[in-house]
Amino acid sequence: MTSSSIHPPQRFLFGPGPTQVAPSVYTAMSQTIVSHLDPYFFEVSEGIQEMLRAVFGTSNKLTFSISGTGSGGMETAISSLVEQGTRVCVFANGFFCDRMTEMAKRQGGNVVRLEKPWGEVFTDAEAKEFIEREKPQVVMFVQAETSTGAFQQGTGICKAAHDAGALVIGDVVTSLGAMPVKVDETGIDIAYSCTQKGLSCVPGLSPITVSPRAAEFIEARKTPNRSWYFDLKLLNDYYKVSHRYHHTASATLFYGLHEALSLIKQEGVEQRWARHREMHHEFVKGVEKLGMRMHVPVEHRIVNLNTPVVPEGVDDAKVRKILLDEHGIEIMGGFGPLAGKVFRIGVMGPLATSEHVQKFLKVFADALERSRTAATVTK
Amino acid sequence: MTSSSIHPPQRFLFGPGPTQVAPSVYTAMSQTIVSHLDPYFFEVSEGIQEMLRAVFGTSNKLTFSISGTGSGGMETAISSLVEQGTRVCVFANGFFCDRMTEMAKRQGGNVVRLEKPWGEVFTDAEAKEFIEREKPQVVMFVQAETSTGAFQQGTGICKAAHDAGALVIGDVVTSLGAMPVKVDETGIDIAYSCTQKGLSCVPGLSPITVSPRAAEFIEARKTPNRSWYFDLKLLNDYYKVSHRYHHTASATLFYGLHEALSLIKQEGVEQRWARHREMHHEFVKGVEKLGMRMHVPVEHRIVNLNTPVVPEGVDDAKVRKILLDEHGIEIMGGFGPLAGKVFRIGVMGPLATSEHVQKFLKVFADALERSRTAATVTK
Repeated sequence: MTSSSIHPPQRFLFGPGPTQVAPSVYTAMSQTIVSHLDPYFFEVSEGIQEMLRAVFGTSNKLTFSISGTGSGGMETAISSLVEQGTRVCVFANGFFCDRMTEMAKRQGGNVVRLEKPWGEVFTDAEAKEFIEREKPQVVMFVQAETSTGAFQQGTGICKAAHDAGALVIGDVVTSLGAMPVKVDETGIDIAYSCTQKGLSCVPGLSPITVSPRAAEFIEARKTPNRSWYFDLKLLNDYYKVSHRYHHTASATLFYGLHEALSLIKQEGVEQRWARHREMHHEFVKGVEKLGMRMHVPVEHRIVNLNTPVVPEGVDDAKVRKILLDEHGIEIMGGFGPLAGKVFRIGVMGPLATSEHVQKFLKVFADALERSRTAATVTK
Repeated sequence: MTSSSIHPPQRFLFGPGPTQVAPSVYTAMSQTIVSHLDPYFFEVSEGIQEMLRAVFGTSNKLTFSISGTGSGGMETAISSLVEQGTRVCVFANGFFCDRMTEMAKRQGGNVVRLEKPWGEVFTDAEAKEFIEREKPQVVMFVQAETSTGAFQQGTGICKAAHDAGALVIGDVVTSLGAMPVKVDETGIDIAYSCTQKGLSCVPGLSPITVSPRAAEFIEARKTPNRSWYFDLKLLNDYYKVSHRYHHTASATLFYGLHEALSLIKQEGVEQRWARHREMHHEFVKGVEKLGMRMHVPVEHRIVNLNTPVVPEGVDDAKVRKILLDEHGIEIMGGFGPLAGKVFRIGVMGPLATSEHVQKFLKVFADALERSRTAATVTK
């Protein structure tokens, strides 16, 4: 099937996202659209909500998707809870915590940060001490930091926050669909994600879920959300209550997300998590065999996004270029404090199979070998 | 081609949008994605920018699309120019002017409105008088009001605003792709639109264009945009300058928009405008033959969105139900002050042909006849 103007190169998306998309998701998105007020649209939307609850691990009624990317979900969460002068605590150990900080400041938040080097996580004691000391109204953390490869469930953070009467925003952009996010069990009040990582859909929507406690806060807050587009009160009315027009949600993206979630349901959520965990172990075994080590300690690793350290004497940009140019494989490098120091390699969705992992490791080994700098080669 | 979970009913989208989408746009969107940092992505993005300039009628360098729907474009424009205390004048003659008002207030704007009944437009003298009196920093108007069917180019508004040193935001959501928007000639500083009306693509993106004067203001403003997601400075850096990661733009939606714009380019922009104008005349002739009259005076009509008045004694909800249930045809009713008083019928894109218009008029006549209330029938 060809298009007159679009002829993309074949890619194997082993980066942090977007990742590979199953053919039936593309098929779903090529079905003819209905309007954002059509009974069929709301049928699809209801199905999405129900299936999202299973991957989020929540019974929150207010669970749907935002018409924007993961960063749109982040802005929805933050603009919903942070008003002028709101005291906000951020657990800062990577790029996306910095983005949360920036957004909270733009909403008028009074932000304090507990910082750790990129790749580390916070202990329950550290979380408790920080929150007790700072007495925040809102606490923010990233469950799976795409910039570092580090995972923290967040249970200790949520417990300390709730003890202090604060609401918790958890970024589950990279974990959703590939790892157990456990929103309710963990205690996250607003969790948001994206469609193009663990859910194996194309980008464009941001799944979000809101606890009854956070929903109550939003209902009662005295100042309106500064964002009209991301106002959860209006969105809830559109998706759940009156179906009154808010914005023109994209049937195409909803079709794609519905199909991607249906595939997850078919596979079984638990089985899917297990598959990603197993492929992670196979991947790590493989790169360790190549003499590489992982940036994040074994107990804190995201399973679907690996950050092996760039071996000394290897030009990481050259490795990435060889993979893309010769094999159509995309991986990403580190950035910020990890620029040039780690690779960021996603093993997710349709590519999280032994066959794909082994194929990848083979060409990766070759690319690494050919990317040693002259100095190293002649040593 | 079938999908396991998505089986939409066949629809003929004669509403205000979304409207019918050409098959090749669906084909483009079913091509495999690349990442938001892939060279191919930026190639597609550049093509979109160039083709958008032609439909906008602008040479603005800063012309691209926002990863959100038309209302996301509205929030981008308003959050870019309206800060705490900014004095804003709104020309208010419909639903979307009210939405602009609400958004400007949420950004801290000090908003004054010149109001007219829904369906009317403003004279140059009224615009001049209002702006000279209120001395705004930002002026906002809607070029094609989807809620009423009224069109005003905006030249007089822009002239008066510029004479007063103000910047102008123009909503061209319904006009873009179907009527000459003429951004540069009219003098609009930020114009935004959507993809699912005159451009005949699916919803999900919001094309936007920014004049050098507005870009200069944005570059120099002292407070950051309250929205990080819609921050044009960051977006410009991602799309145009450094290609540095901002958010994960959706290759799928970009493919669709690229193809939709390519179809417009093939047809010829001027030819497309002429086709919509001709089909508008054919449509109006048809409904007048049915004894209906148009809500908007002939000189101020949007050509691709018609608002015939609901004949006395006709139940407009019943008409819409018959069309949808029996023919898969979607049209919309009026709302706000026009609820129950007008139909909103779009004749755009693939449906703007004589064959489709005549087919529509036939079933519309039948539906009208069968929707007379008992009182009328027995009179």
